[in-house]
Amino acid sequence: MKVAALAGGIGAGKFLRGLTRIVPGPDLTVIVNVADDVVVHGLHVSPDPDSVTYWLGDVFDRGRGWGRRNESFRATQELRTIDPDAAWFGLGDLDLATHLFRTGRLAAGASLSEVTASIARRFGVGARLLPATDDRVETRIECVAQLTGEPLDLHFQEYWVRRAARDRVKGVRYDGAVEAVPAPGVLASIAEADLIVVCPSNPVVSIGPILAIPGVRDAVAARRRAAVGISGIVGGGPVSGMADKLMPAVGIEVTAAGVAEHYRELLSAWLLDDVDRGLIPRVESSGIRCAATDTIMVDDDRAEAVARAALALLT
Amino acid sequence: MKVAALAGGIGAGKFLRGLTRIVPGPDLTVIVNVADDVVVHGLHVSPDPDSVTYWLGDVFDRGRGWGRRNESFRATQELRTIDPDAAWFGLGDLDLATHLFRTGRLAAGASLSEVTASIARRFGVGARLLPATDDRVETRIECVAQLTGEPLDLHFQEYWVRRAARDRVKGVRYDGAVEAVPAPGVLASIAEADLIVVCPSNPVVSIGPILAIPGVRDAVAARRRAAVGISGIVGGGPVSGMADKLMPAVGIEVTAAGVAEHYRELLSAWLLDDVDRGLIPRVESSGIRCAATDTIMVDDDRAEAVARAALALLT
Repeated sequence: MKVAALAGGIGAGKFLRGLTRIVPGPDLTVIVNVADDVVVHGLHVSPDPDSVTYWLGDVFDRGRGWGRRNESFRATQELRTIDPDAAWFGLGDLDLATHLFRTGRLAAGASLSEVTASIARRFGVGARLLPATDDRVETRIECVAQLTGEPLDLHFQEYWVRRAARDRVKGVRYDGAVEAVPAPGVLASIAEADLIVVCPSNPVVSIGPILAIPGVRDAVAARRRAAVGISGIVGGGPVSGMADKLMPAVGIEVTAAGVAEHYRELLSAWLLDDVDRGLIPRVESSGIRCAATDTIMVDDDRAEAVARAALALLT
Repeated sequence: MKVAALAGGIGAGKFLRGLTRIVPGPDLTVIVNVADDVVVHGLHVSPDPDSVTYWLGDVFDRGRGWGRRNESFRATQELRTIDPDAAWFGLGDLDLATHLFRTGRLAAGASLSEVTASIARRFGVGARLLPATDDRVETRIECVAQLTGEPLDLHFQEYWVRRAARDRVKGVRYDGAVEAVPAPGVLASIAEADLIVVCPSNPVVSIGPILAIPGVRDAVAARRRAAVGISGIVGGGPVSGMADKLMPAVGIEVTAAGVAEHYRELLSAWLLDDVDRGLIPRVESSGIRCAATDTIMVDDDRAEAVARAALALLT
């Protein structure tokens, strides 16, 4: 069974550890968001591809959620003594190696696809990891500064990491998306998959920018009957992250049903959490088959159970 | 007494620790070579300014010579597991903070002068540290591959760090030097100094590129009577580094006298090591006042003694 998964970072990483227990490496293609990519101090950082790689490569830090196990932050701590303002991104020493490698290879002319695949391979990831695009797409958050009321137009990482999501969000743009081209293999993997899975990732800043690349949304919609999603919204809020602050600005209700309805044209099945079981009739009234399970993936066994429950909706 | 010093990296750093005991911070301007600067994995690394900063900022590692005390190499070791070929430069975790800061500031539009001064200030360096130029100058080593006989045209760091100076050197170029402009303050500090000191640095790849920037050589030559140098060649070889492999290719004899003669139009005084005492008459026959002392700077006391002996030749 061939599966194509649309993925953001940490939520996707947790879930995909379960899915890879069912779908062996080469049969799973993970199409991952790169609109959160950011150049920090000259280094090209790809937060979502790295999260997925670290989770599937078994070097993730489950406690912290992001980054690597046994990580240290000597470079960042030292940078903070040189310039307290500069070190907002918090790059770990081990994590830096990934960014140094990526930046060097991109500068040497490699595509983001090639570099992403190389990194995944070095970490022993069996699944095929594709950036949504090799082109530059950047999620921009239009907001209003919490204290001053000043309008701001921020890179997603500035909004989320640097300013801790404290500014009131007015809108979200995917700069460059319209001109971007899906990375090699993206459309084909969707077209050829037996199943398509939308991971429990942020619909606005993780899945949204993937779907915004011309051709991707239509490719998924054409496979709607084979497509299932898992809600990252549980009990009216995100399991992690800041989706609840972004979703209202783009008109998505912050519930498991709201996300399902947002994906209505793309998915025919939806898995939500047990606590949201009461929303099943509403989701099903949108023409989406729906089931509930415990989606809080505290370990790989739970992630596998979630993956099995999602696939069971379509098979 | 105002002093302007022309400096490379480690030899200069050791010596300047002694000189700063005699010449207080603001009276000392250090004009440092930036033709060894290299972009590694997207990071702008300035080996010579950093060496001088780390030595004067008292964070140097005397044992290793280069880099910082209490350094770790987690990022580089990790990079080596991702790509054994990529991690040739060996960036330390603490050292990385300097490069991240520099690269970020340059990308934000700061000049190399501004960034160099910021970094020196953060490390508590009292002397004024000026890059020779804000423009891109790059020392290229033309050589022949040791094994294959293939002609190579290498960045100095590739020749020295990556290939361990094993290739036969045919020539040296300072790419960009002719179009470069001295950094703000360089010519003025030479013109206004009471004394000019050429540090015990490599004449080919440290002092050479500084002098190659239009105006600098003439500025020093105009102050010849106030200029003294210290030999980095002792007993027919460099105290450290690879000057002996480069000097023949540009026609400099690998002796303390050979370097003095190379600087003949620039300096009126020359300090060499006790072991080369026999060369004093030859140097003096070139019209250069000459003295000898123990120039192996095993500690700051010895560096101070070397600095006093050098200044004594002109005062």
